[in-house]
Amino acid sequence: MNAEIICIGTELLLGNIVNTDATDVAQALSELGISVYRYTAVGDNPERLTEVVQAAAQRADLLITTGGLGPTLDDLSKETVAGAFGKKLVRHPECEAEIRAYFDKIGTVMTPNNLQQAMLPESCTVLHNAWGTAPGCVFESGGVMVIMLPGPPRECRAMLKHRVVPYLKSRSKQTIHSRYLHVFGMGESGVEYALHDLMAQSSNPTVAPYAKEGEVMLRVTAAAADEDAAEAMIEPVVAQIRQTLGDLIYTETYDTLEQTCLELLKSRAETFSTAESCTGGLVAKRITDLPGSSAVFTGGVVAYTEQAKQNLLGVPAELIAREGVVSAPVAEAMARGAAQRLGSKYGIGITGLAGPDGDGSGKPIGLVYVALWDGQESFVRELHSNATRERIRLSASNHAFDMLRRVLTGQRVVL
Amino acid sequence: MNAEIICIGTELLLGNIVNTDATDVAQALSELGISVYRYTAVGDNPERLTEVVQAAAQRADLLITTGGLGPTLDDLSKETVAGAFGKKLVRHPECEAEIRAYFDKIGTVMTPNNLQQAMLPESCTVLHNAWGTAPGCVFESGGVMVIMLPGPPRECRAMLKHRVVPYLKSRSKQTIHSRYLHVFGMGESGVEYALHDLMAQSSNPTVAPYAKEGEVMLRVTAAAADEDAAEAMIEPVVAQIRQTLGDLIYTETYDTLEQTCLELLKSRAETFSTAESCTGGLVAKRITDLPGSSAVFTGGVVAYTEQAKQNLLGVPAELIAREGVVSAPVAEAMARGAAQRLGSKYGIGITGLAGPDGDGSGKPIGLVYVALWDGQESFVRELHSNATRERIRLSASNHAFDMLRRVLTGQRVVL
Repeated sequence: MNAEIICIGTELLLGNIVNTDATDVAQALSELGISVYRYTAVGDNPERLTEVVQAAAQRADLLITTGGLGPTLDDLSKETVAGAFGKKLVRHPECEAEIRAYFDKIGTVMTPNNLQQAMLPESCTVLHNAWGTAPGCVFESGGVMVIMLPGPPRECRAMLKHRVVPYLKSRSKQTIHSRYLHVFGMGESGVEYALHDLMAQSSNPTVAPYAKEGEVMLRVTAAAADEDAAEAMIEPVVAQIRQTLGDLIYTETYDTLEQTCLELLKSRAETFSTAESCTGGLVAKRITDLPGSSAVFTGGVVAYTEQAKQNLLGVPAELIAREGVVSAPVAEAMARGAAQRLGSKYGIGITGLAGPDGDGSGKPIGLVYVALWDGQESFVRELHSNATRERIRLSASNHAFDMLRRVLTGQRVVL
Repeated sequence: MNAEIICIGTELLLGNIVNTDATDVAQALSELGISVYRYTAVGDNPERLTEVVQAAAQRADLLITTGGLGPTLDDLSKETVAGAFGKKLVRHPECEAEIRAYFDKIGTVMTPNNLQQAMLPESCTVLHNAWGTAPGCVFESGGVMVIMLPGPPRECRAMLKHRVVPYLKSRSKQTIHSRYLHVFGMGESGVEYALHDLMAQSSNPTVAPYAKEGEVMLRVTAAAADEDAAEAMIEPVVAQIRQTLGDLIYTETYDTLEQTCLELLKSRAETFSTAESCTGGLVAKRITDLPGSSAVFTGGVVAYTEQAKQNLLGVPAELIAREGVVSAPVAEAMARGAAQRLGSKYGIGITGLAGPDGDGSGKPIGLVYVALWDGQESFVRELHSNATRERIRLSASNHAFDMLRRVLTGQRVVL
């Protein structure tokens, strides 16, 4: 099976938004073993859209469109895509009821143009959108399957995961099964180097690395008659990767470092808290992004000023004067102070220079100390980087979670 | 002039990387008034690439390709693109010298495949790459201008700004000028409804709305002989939009609510601090994402537990007992407590239920109180939502910044 992706929206062609939808759809299809040979971004212009859709339909078995389902004036695209296959839009009363119910629930008056979203191609299967108002749909025409998804990335991603992937899986005879290993502490090229032979040989299962922000995810995918058979093919490959990368692999079960920490803390009924300077609440933000975090995270302090470090965290003024604000002892005192003041077992303390300006001490931009207090002693990592402010902050927060998950699993904390 | 962008790389089609090159090229062209009618991502396959390039050359005056200039073995794409226009690659000795010099400078031994990068289409203009090793180029063939750029986003962006834009400007007679209005407090469909007539009539200037996370940006763009003439065409349209949307427009100068607050606070030499419960540090994270935030943000507390609210913010236990943790009085006490404990003029306090679980009080998920203390009195907004945890948190943080910018500009704070 081969697919093309068509992303609809003039905002893409104006460069106002990055096309994450194309990436998300491509990745989901790749995981199902469906080849994507090209994707196209096109505006809301009916003529050009028709041309793109009809040409793609000549080449591919599956077309996935994103965008153009919303209630705005220029959204003729749904009509255009349906029309390219000789189909009309018809009103779907159950969608209309859902749209009305959505606005009732959020307590906002619905403008009439929202009802346009209930118009979908005749004889389609509706893909219910639980994350927004515009439903998606699937229809077939002349041997081509067409799937239309909403454009907002959050909605598109959820629809892919909960609607499209299950739908496509249910229609396939072969099972594609993957396992994911999350790696922190080695870059993408390092991982590729370490696993070179394994990756070069791999065909089924395949081993593919994905660079994520500051970490690497390895995907091991096998195609087989059923999941058990695929799993039996994957297992020895995973074992080999584990032997090579060891404790750099932090999870195979969860998506992120913070989710891994959350689950480990929950299973031990333990808590942590944070004292952040240069990361400005990023560690707190990341853990509280997760439902259930209130059981393991007692709170955090963003202490930008020396006054805040002293008053809220009890970092001694003379320690700051002697060692400097950006120093290992201050990071440790912050970590301990957070745990004590916020009543948690573990405390994380971060102090550093994320730039672009320094603090006048002559210490280099990119120097960050990340400390972890485990209730009895503290560990500190000293980080150096010449990346951007954003990357420095992200990296520091990754290290904080990595140290925490290592303490929680009895591994060496300072590398 | 109309353009097409062709992004070359199998990694795009596997969903391994987000296509920021397409966005960057599209944006640069849009700002020059060059229409982009479509962009295509295609793999390193010579047949399909030739097909894509030749079809695009039929439709567009300008083709910009990204990717495929590097030294890797499978990079046949430069040869393929040149070949699609009947051109051969020839060795450019000055490029070869630059590549050798680059490796000398970074002190790395050059592998021979790097010299492939000095092979460029015959009779092209070389675009010198000061940010990497692969030079770009421009050539013309049959009335079509072809510009080839390197794929790594940092190099592509720099080449666009310092090579492509100056080159295209030097060849153009018309100026395109835009102004951007940022709106908070009304959704995209509401804004379109309010501006329906204006948008339906608009051709030059055009008025286009862009939905951003929780807010809307309006772009007003005119094409004219020079910037003054364009500005004269835009001004009455902006005035009309301002009359309709009033103080829902929060900036025309900056990109975001938090940047607007940062600049307003800086110009008044004032500070704020935060006390966050359900937003878990998101307000602190957003302000500290910005360079220069340490001048206006003294710090924040993420107070998930009652203990933290009492100990770090001085919220009275009896107030929590009487009103409940999620209540307007507690939000106000948190805002005041943050300002007092963290030594700032303004304080933001946020308490609410972001879900998915409630707090046992029977109060609904999505109920959030956002309070702003201005040094003398406090204002509270009560929010309701049935969106996801992520959206509830984002919306609450947007409201916090909106309240702050309204206090700072003397507008009504509670709507």
